[in-house]
Amino acid sequence: MDDFRALKDIRLTVIGIGLMGGSVLKALKSAENRPAMVTAVDTDPDVLAKIEAKGLADIATEDTASAIKDADMVVIALYPKQAIKLVTEHSGDFKPGCVVTDICGVKREVMDEIPKLLPEGVDFVGGHPMAGREHMGFDYSVPDLFLGCKYILMNGPKKAVKLVRDFADALGAGKIVKADPEYHDEMIAYTSQLPHALAVTYMLSSDARGVEDFSAGSFRDFTRISMINEEMWSELFLENRDKLGDEIDHLMDILNALKVFTKSGDRESLKKMMKMAAMMREGIKG
Amino acid sequence: MDDFRALKDIRLTVIGIGLMGGSVLKALKSAENRPAMVTAVDTDPDVLAKIEAKGLADIATEDTASAIKDADMVVIALYPKQAIKLVTEHSGDFKPGCVVTDICGVKREVMDEIPKLLPEGVDFVGGHPMAGREHMGFDYSVPDLFLGCKYILMNGPKKAVKLVRDFADALGAGKIVKADPEYHDEMIAYTSQLPHALAVTYMLSSDARGVEDFSAGSFRDFTRISMINEEMWSELFLENRDKLGDEIDHLMDILNALKVFTKSGDRESLKKMMKMAAMMREGIKG
Repeated sequence: MDDFRALKDIRLTVIGIGLMGGSVLKALKSAENRPAMVTAVDTDPDVLAKIEAKGLADIATEDTASAIKDADMVVIALYPKQAIKLVTEHSGDFKPGCVVTDICGVKREVMDEIPKLLPEGVDFVGGHPMAGREHMGFDYSVPDLFLGCKYILMNGPKKAVKLVRDFADALGAGKIVKADPEYHDEMIAYTSQLPHALAVTYMLSSDARGVEDFSAGSFRDFTRISMINEEMWSELFLENRDKLGDEIDHLMDILNALKVFTKSGDRESLKKMMKMAAMMREGIKG
Repeated sequence: MDDFRALKDIRLTVIGIGLMGGSVLKALKSAENRPAMVTAVDTDPDVLAKIEAKGLADIATEDTASAIKDADMVVIALYPKQAIKLVTEHSGDFKPGCVVTDICGVKREVMDEIPKLLPEGVDFVGGHPMAGREHMGFDYSVPDLFLGCKYILMNGPKKAVKLVRDFADALGAGKIVKADPEYHDEMIAYTSQLPHALAVTYMLSSDARGVEDFSAGSFRDFTRISMINEEMWSELFLENRDKLGDEIDHLMDILNALKVFTKSGDRESLKKMMKMAAMMREGIKG
């Protein structure tokens, strides 16, 4: 008997229909490998009405317990603390053999908490699709949000990982990246949280001066990610406070060196820094 | 008698045919308001041959003195130190009534030096078209480099400013911004040099870790400007070292606050910073 289930044969429940959950529904709607049944769970009746009007799910409901009880796979599309709270409250509702995944941008906390809250026979595979937009909420969700994105997966039982991988493929993910929570959070502190922290800091540093007349494309690209959702990002920063703090410390040492070279007129050292940075950036594809 | 000369009636000389000078030639080639004669000066015979082959100038020459002697307007498209050196060496070659402009990204030094080097009757109007690309040199020049850009102009005699303004319009500039050198350099330290300094610092902070698997669009946008031409940018940084140094100091204070809030788990303060940054960014058009 084949222990591996195909995505198209399962009943999938998506919990939390914001930017990410909504984009999951929209991507799956036209996916070749669409699950046999898709249930959407949200607490906002307006969002549920929109899902029904657009035919984005077979069932759109506020009843989390029933939606979990029926599911072969559950995608928790909530912020980390809410995700843990949901599993705590509904741990008895997951049926044996169910595969659970999440989309949280920091992984140590959810990976520490969620597996031990789930009953035996229910597998958790942490996930982090590296996709997003400046604006949050269902109304900004789009079918191609995940198209070509890196989809990071934590370890888990083979058949559970296979199912989540098929789910990521169905969304249009470009590359599946395997990582453990520690390494993930360290890398994300650098590749995602630090740029957002710097863009926020940079904008606050403007002192509300009239910068508009002196800004070009480089300013716009550099500051786009300062338009940040403070609810989500403050939670992500704090869950990863040790790693992000280390990254900021490290960056400040280098920024201080650049400042000293600038103030002291050490052109050769400045040129070395610039040349090295350009080389490193050019070495990163995509 | 009308003291104002029209761009289309004058003989224009462009000195230094790199990314910027080349883009000037290419933009003027199809401009409605093309000068009566365009002369291109460069020290590289290969570049001169390409200009001739493409018909980008009426004359392409290495002979700076003759090209200046014949010109009603001279555009110096060189780095700041080279621009000052050129005017020093050729101050006797400019004819009375000639209007001189430059494209340097830092303005105090050129504005301090160049006017006093020029003979009486020759007017200097400092300029800074806020346009560029990651790669330098004639081969990367494009006709639409200046399309819609902000073109910053220093003060000068009315008729001279009018001519440089017409020149900027002919290139396709989107907005002429008037500024004095002090204010220009202060604003540019923040809107242009600081983002480049931060992008360079951020890339160097990667420690050559394998970031490729953990990078999304935000990483790419944020780091694009780390691909910097170290010859030009080290000179710009050093000419503006006081202002850029102040900007880095100011930013580090704010970054330190963000780090302290993150490490200590002060979520409300973090959220305030993020909300304020997003508001400030959203208030900047374009």
